[in-house]
Amino acid sequence: MNLNLQKSLLCIGIDPVMSKLPKHVQNGDDPFFNFAKEIIDATHEYVCAYKPNSAFFEAVGTDGIRQLRMICDYVNVEYPDLLLVIDAKRGDIGHSSEAYAQYVFDYLGADAVTLHPILGKEALQPFLDRKDKWSIILCKTSNPGSGEFQNVQLTSESIPVYQYIARQVASEWNQYNNCMLVVGATYPKELGEIRTIVGDMPLLVPGIGTQGGDLEKTLHAGLTHKSSGLILSVSRSIIYAGSGKDFAQKGREEAFQLHDAIEKIRNE
Amino acid sequence: MNLNLQKSLLCIGIDPVMSKLPKHVQNGDDPFFNFAKEIIDATHEYVCAYKPNSAFFEAVGTDGIRQLRMICDYVNVEYPDLLLVIDAKRGDIGHSSEAYAQYVFDYLGADAVTLHPILGKEALQPFLDRKDKWSIILCKTSNPGSGEFQNVQLTSESIPVYQYIARQVASEWNQYNNCMLVVGATYPKELGEIRTIVGDMPLLVPGIGTQGGDLEKTLHAGLTHKSSGLILSVSRSIIYAGSGKDFAQKGREEAFQLHDAIEKIRNE
Repeated sequence: MNLNLQKSLLCIGIDPVMSKLPKHVQNGDDPFFNFAKEIIDATHEYVCAYKPNSAFFEAVGTDGIRQLRMICDYVNVEYPDLLLVIDAKRGDIGHSSEAYAQYVFDYLGADAVTLHPILGKEALQPFLDRKDKWSIILCKTSNPGSGEFQNVQLTSESIPVYQYIARQVASEWNQYNNCMLVVGATYPKELGEIRTIVGDMPLLVPGIGTQGGDLEKTLHAGLTHKSSGLILSVSRSIIYAGSGKDFAQKGREEAFQLHDAIEKIRNE
Repeated sequence: MNLNLQKSLLCIGIDPVMSKLPKHVQNGDDPFFNFAKEIIDATHEYVCAYKPNSAFFEAVGTDGIRQLRMICDYVNVEYPDLLLVIDAKRGDIGHSSEAYAQYVFDYLGADAVTLHPILGKEALQPFLDRKDKWSIILCKTSNPGSGEFQNVQLTSESIPVYQYIARQVASEWNQYNNCMLVVGATYPKELGEIRTIVGDMPLLVPGIGTQGGDLEKTLHAGLTHKSSGLILSVSRSIIYAGSGKDFAQKGREEAFQLHDAIEKIRNE
């Protein structure tokens, strides 16, 4: 299952946008792949996972998907101990979910995928049945407008939707211990509540960095009693730390500092 | 916006699985494209829309996406008056939603896309801002387990989640009159409730055919007072109506009969 959080809780999100890549990368072959490869080679010591977001590769069509697969192959061959998450946010009825599972697990070779809960467990069964793969369910997302649905209060339970998702996944979906939840670092109070509901379940936490989530609050609210159980995903503030030929080195410095800051709080 | 429901409410879902295609198609070039092309040429008189599901193309990687784009180009060139829906069920935070909007609207050239509501309007704004494109939001999905989240009752509103989605989309999201909802034909009672909430908003209704939704109940519950406003999406029972060289002709017969049955009820 490739989840080892001992040396690091840091995950780097790989979200390439052509206009944001260094000029020399834009002008070379396979710009998304080469950009990601340099970032990965420069940062792998400090991370537990990489998380390419399928959206940014799909945006440019087949050429993007081809390079996404190259990145996945590269991580699987060169750094097989690291978790490879495809941030795909999929969710469909059963036979379509089966096809999406083939895309992320068989074609791309990922270890984990992010999923929408709203169709219910029955629809996502083709993902959940992959005992050796992680299903990471959206619970409380990092964006400012996530409360519109996720914070609405439920009658019978007297809890908001996001807590209901956490409870359902922890109690009903997690038969093979292969479920995680997405909880945004921008909502530390909710993160703490979710930790109480799900016990030691790993949580994928985006929102530190560009989105403004506070590192210390996040760790205090979300760490398990073993000071583990969080995968802190950071993307833009690392991958776009530099814009010149030394972009990967700049990214490495950013990753080093973040890793260091996390470990300090973790070991308090 | 390409939505003309006068001559037909029928939409054909294009969900190709290699092992289910006729043998001669499997053995030829571009099997997904040629399969779809024959079905489209044989059925276009009886439909208002085609709806390829991205999952089935992604399952085989870049070669699938390439053929999906060929199908989209084919529909846009040969049958430009028909609505082209990409059933992609996407939904992510803003800058990722922007990338997904590029994939479906700019790269594939679709007129409409299906979307998950759970991140809220703010996250989906890049889709909603496309005034000339349809955003089709999941509301009450056709699968047996859809009630796990969609039917849970909300406190402040005393309505279930799916009605809350319908209300939010109708009252807050639909500024440019470019929103629809997905409501499964397997739930006619809920379809009627949703129709009451959303007025004349078009509803995309899967679930007739293989999934067992009842045509008459669906039309009675979901038609607007103008006997319109429904897009009835049928996939497997048409595209797999035959398995030999005459598969497209068999599909045409199935489409003709369904179109006929719909028009009879519609004109009662």
